[in-house]
Amino acid sequence: MSKKLTKRAEDYSKWYNELVVKAGLAESSGVRGCMVIKPYGYAIWEKMQAELDRMFKETGHENAYFPLFIPKSYLSKEADHVEGFAKECAVVTHYRLKNAEDGSGVVVDPEAKLEEELIVRPTSETIIWDTYKKWIESYRDLPLLINQWANVVRWEMRTRLFLRTAEFLWQEGHTAHATKEEAVEEAALILDVYANFAEQYMAVPVIKGLKTASERFAGAEETYCIEGLMQDGKALQAGTSHFLGQNFAKAFDVKFTSKEGKQEYVWATSWGVSTRLMGALIMTHSDDLGLVLPPKLAPIQVVIVPIYKTEEQLDAISAKVDSMTKELKASGISVKYDRRTTHKPGWKFAEYELKGVPLRIAIGPRDLENGTLEIARRDTLTKQSVPQEGLLAHVQENLADMQEKLFQKALDYRTSHTTEVDSFETFKEVLDTHGGFVSAHWDGTAETEDKIKELTKATIRCIPLNNKREEGKCILTGAPSTQRVLFAKAY
Amino acid sequence: MSKKLTKRAEDYSKWYNELVVKAGLAESSGVRGCMVIKPYGYAIWEKMQAELDRMFKETGHENAYFPLFIPKSYLSKEADHVEGFAKECAVVTHYRLKNAEDGSGVVVDPEAKLEEELIVRPTSETIIWDTYKKWIESYRDLPLLINQWANVVRWEMRTRLFLRTAEFLWQEGHTAHATKEEAVEEAALILDVYANFAEQYMAVPVIKGLKTASERFAGAEETYCIEGLMQDGKALQAGTSHFLGQNFAKAFDVKFTSKEGKQEYVWATSWGVSTRLMGALIMTHSDDLGLVLPPKLAPIQVVIVPIYKTEEQLDAISAKVDSMTKELKASGISVKYDRRTTHKPGWKFAEYELKGVPLRIAIGPRDLENGTLEIARRDTLTKQSVPQEGLLAHVQENLADMQEKLFQKALDYRTSHTTEVDSFETFKEVLDTHGGFVSAHWDGTAETEDKIKELTKATIRCIPLNNKREEGKCILTGAPSTQRVLFAKAY
Repeated sequence: MSKKLTKRAEDYSKWYNELVVKAGLAESSGVRGCMVIKPYGYAIWEKMQAELDRMFKETGHENAYFPLFIPKSYLSKEADHVEGFAKECAVVTHYRLKNAEDGSGVVVDPEAKLEEELIVRPTSETIIWDTYKKWIESYRDLPLLINQWANVVRWEMRTRLFLRTAEFLWQEGHTAHATKEEAVEEAALILDVYANFAEQYMAVPVIKGLKTASERFAGAEETYCIEGLMQDGKALQAGTSHFLGQNFAKAFDVKFTSKEGKQEYVWATSWGVSTRLMGALIMTHSDDLGLVLPPKLAPIQVVIVPIYKTEEQLDAISAKVDSMTKELKASGISVKYDRRTTHKPGWKFAEYELKGVPLRIAIGPRDLENGTLEIARRDTLTKQSVPQEGLLAHVQENLADMQEKLFQKALDYRTSHTTEVDSFETFKEVLDTHGGFVSAHWDGTAETEDKIKELTKATIRCIPLNNKREEGKCILTGAPSTQRVLFAKAY
Repeated sequence: MSKKLTKRAEDYSKWYNELVVKAGLAESSGVRGCMVIKPYGYAIWEKMQAELDRMFKETGHENAYFPLFIPKSYLSKEADHVEGFAKECAVVTHYRLKNAEDGSGVVVDPEAKLEEELIVRPTSETIIWDTYKKWIESYRDLPLLINQWANVVRWEMRTRLFLRTAEFLWQEGHTAHATKEEAVEEAALILDVYANFAEQYMAVPVIKGLKTASERFAGAEETYCIEGLMQDGKALQAGTSHFLGQNFAKAFDVKFTSKEGKQEYVWATSWGVSTRLMGALIMTHSDDLGLVLPPKLAPIQVVIVPIYKTEEQLDAISAKVDSMTKELKASGISVKYDRRTTHKPGWKFAEYELKGVPLRIAIGPRDLENGTLEIARRDTLTKQSVPQEGLLAHVQENLADMQEKLFQKALDYRTSHTTEVDSFETFKEVLDTHGGFVSAHWDGTAETEDKIKELTKATIRCIPLNNKREEGKCILTGAPSTQRVLFAKAY
């Protein structure tokens, strides 16, 4: 398979699809809309999981596991929730297959029909609140701070690897609190965890904000979100944290005895990020040569490629490399030495560029004589001959610098692609020619929001937190407004 | 809820069920046969996962993720496989719900019927080999060494927490090799990984062996297993590793070009352990007071309980404990300081006994004066007053000793519950009165195996690896036999 990718400027969407497959991240499966996450892609996801899991635990959360299936009747208990999630779901109706009478294979056994259909979880609020009812009696049982790592299924019609798939992997937090204030604080705390993770590990700058009523999670009182901006000027929602009020507590009758001895409904949050983050990571940093990975999430941070003609040279290089890798690994740097004799150095260089390995070291016989090596950076594509002496410090500095520069570059892109506009004409023009976030006044109604979406395909990504108060007029209706909101075309 | 458990001698099965729920490990959910794994139980599972994952990676395996759903037709491609797995599975037939016309909730939308039904994976050989077909072309692509952590569903009629549930969590390894020898070696390598994990981490001694033809995995040429023995004298299969021959390669047409340029079918293995290991862990070590956990898998290794009357005393104790926990944590020991004022020390002692925390430290005002503390061991239930000085070494020694003693105790139990018998009368008598493994001659036929099972409920757990050759006569038929096999009643 050729490693050449379609260029981003040519066809961004095609570039993305090719990159995901050719870099060994994921591919489509024989099951409609479901992807296979390949080992290299999964290794990145594991690094994301490890950091997020640590962050959740440091903020007092514990992991647990709830059933994959949700009885149909549970979904109906919260009115908005069922409207949002019953539409596209996988329904289990039978529990047995049998041999076909004509010998053609197996068929569903009509006698093994379930009394009540089971839904493959699209999200777990209902099954979890059905469980919390048993766990919560008194204020002493609160707060309950639980997270689950799981697969979920939403029957999407148009799917794209990582961005929108029928099955995806995610974490979903579900917390229960004695007071409204505490639940709102929790939702905000998690939004900060998500934003810190996105910025410090993924090197993806994000805007923290509130969703409008029409973009809220089905069943939430308020949805907080983080929004990133991709290189094609489209926004991507990277994580959401919901304040659920007492909606699920009321639907599942979950009350607690307060300190004052009163029976009260419990307050709730839920929050999640998914393998969609992989899409954000890829689209924020990568280039026409392939993946560009921030060092903190790269499964291989340094790859070493020997340049040799004879076997003696290879042996001498390998001996040197052996002590180098030991030193790097001892400092927690992940290193791969690719001494395969079946592929030429040029082939390997292209391979690791495609896979986004942050630093590439090449070392040949002359380097051995001179005590040098060549080090190439994936983000800048620059090469440098450096002394072997002091390699560890050089690698550490470059990894740290690359992590920071990737973030800064993405931030600069976002800054230059965030435009304040005050007329609908300019609004449309900016969206069509420049892209990115458009900051504009809006009259606060769902009608206007829908109309703008219909006319431009742009949606309100969020009302930024700590937004500046500013008098203005809605770009569409001219009605008075007190703040700007962020519009964009989005994934 | 009372913490008192039914005694093992009274009703072992009831003791187990109560323990699982009361120690906060798992409970039944509103979905038939599906369990909720509670935070404390999940924390133990996470520790198991971490060790196993490390072992898989150290032996060259990578993780990946494959779809939850398997098209019905895939299952049929391997004849034995479909016989084994089509019988009890969850079948997805529709992909949408809609509002009921009578307003009573939601109903399955008959128009959203799938053209081909999807099976919720009971195991993933078929979907994975359908994928491997795309990944394998040449001997250079082999071996392919992949593992997946996932949930699977088998529609069991009689379920028990951890031991047999409709949905369970597991890992499943699926490897592809160029030669038969390599595949057989892989299956044996993984069996060793499983046995080492069981013995060194779970402190559960296991017998490594081969399953008889009738107990083999559906689609395997050979099934290797590890078998443990529980305190009630029943065996438990704790893990299996299958040599699959070329069965799945043939079913999914997966060939590779060999070094010699020939097209050949690929050789395969698959192997798995599941949340069933939790059942083995619980039943091997626990007692009438609750869980007993081997230190290497205990989420909390040391709990510290302050004994005080006044708030000043509590503050003084807490200050001392603070420096103690810092020292222990710095050495990688997980410590919990329970300074809740809402519960008395006696209540806390019982709580941590129930939860199987290996070491409990109690410290009061007199200890502060004397520079001492009281340390209690969960396995022996012994208490000892020791100097605060040198606590770290004392804790480390006791944790290591407890890990070893638990294994030794379980091994002694197994030794005293493994009986060689040479007649069917003794066979039945040993099973009924003493239990455990019964080592006996068998004529090697499935008929005899079935008959023995029918008469005694005992099955052949395995033919031990490296079994001693020994002339003998089948206990049932008297036909000649060349080796003994291990029988037992089993979970």
